[in-house]
Amino acid sequence: MKDTSDVNDAPDVKVGSGLTYADDLQIGERYPLGTHTITEAEVVEYATAWDPQGFHIDKEIADAGAYGGIIASGIHTLAIYQRLAVSGVFGNWSVIAGKSLTDVRFLRPVRPGDTLTGSITVDDVAFDDRGRALVTTSARLANQRAEEVLSLVVEAFVRARP
Amino acid sequence: MKDTSDVNDAPDVKVGSGLTYADDLQIGERYPLGTHTITEAEVVEYATAWDPQGFHIDKEIADAGAYGGIIASGIHTLAIYQRLAVSGVFGNWSVIAGKSLTDVRFLRPVRPGDTLTGSITVDDVAFDDRGRALVTTSARLANQRAEEVLSLVVEAFVRARP
Repeated sequence: MKDTSDVNDAPDVKVGSGLTYADDLQIGERYPLGTHTITEAEVVEYATAWDPQGFHIDKEIADAGAYGGIIASGIHTLAIYQRLAVSGVFGNWSVIAGKSLTDVRFLRPVRPGDTLTGSITVDDVAFDDRGRALVTTSARLANQRAEEVLSLVVEAFVRARP
Repeated sequence: MKDTSDVNDAPDVKVGSGLTYADDLQIGERYPLGTHTITEAEVVEYATAWDPQGFHIDKEIADAGAYGGIIASGIHTLAIYQRLAVSGVFGNWSVIAGKSLTDVRFLRPVRPGDTLTGSITVDDVAFDDRGRALVTTSARLANQRAEEVLSLVVEAFVRARP
């Protein structure tokens, strides 16, 4: 496995080039995430491609539905979390791959115009004998009214310092 | 809540217009899914938008990484599951919204060129007093070598027959 941390000094370091190893993580440390404002066009475009249920893509069906309007796909909300997580946190870690998501909860509808942000907390770092650790993080996203819309737990393999 | 099942006779019934109610679901019933072949362009496009880690979008980083080449984002794999699930199963159900995903496991890397398919099984249908049921399903996706790449459990609210 090639160590790509030799790009350390490059000002335009690529996301995922991996500067933080599992050894550097502190259990209990909390990382704030950036923000993402979701537009109706994005909701409809994402759901048309990946989750074409009426209440995500069709105003008429959505208006008549349980939420009185279009709501974002849960998978889209999860994708927004992932983009914020990679941009703000995981992109700086030497991630090998994700292993699992547990307890992904869609706590409230996400609507066009909502601005989402949140945080990620390191819950556990469990080293194995393969030069890596299984890192457990928990995350939450909330909207602009501080109402939580998503919570999840992520397990990912992160390289140990070589 | 407006019942949209009056589009029952329309030949071009929209996905999500909801013809199957929770009452119609059988615990233990298994639904096969269609197939999706994932291209490298799709892997890179999806991950560039939502999960820009090097091992998803950068050949050089991916070739030097743990999997010896670009692998699909787990969230992308989940989105593929969701598209197959909506096209083949949930699109015919009167779904209100998803509630949670539990135990989403990325069992093996998904690579460009892989063809994914799988099935969904109804595990539980629990009616409440709000005209709906919490429906629990489990699903698996495998590649063209019948190697499982994704498993998950989904809880969603589905309307009871009015």
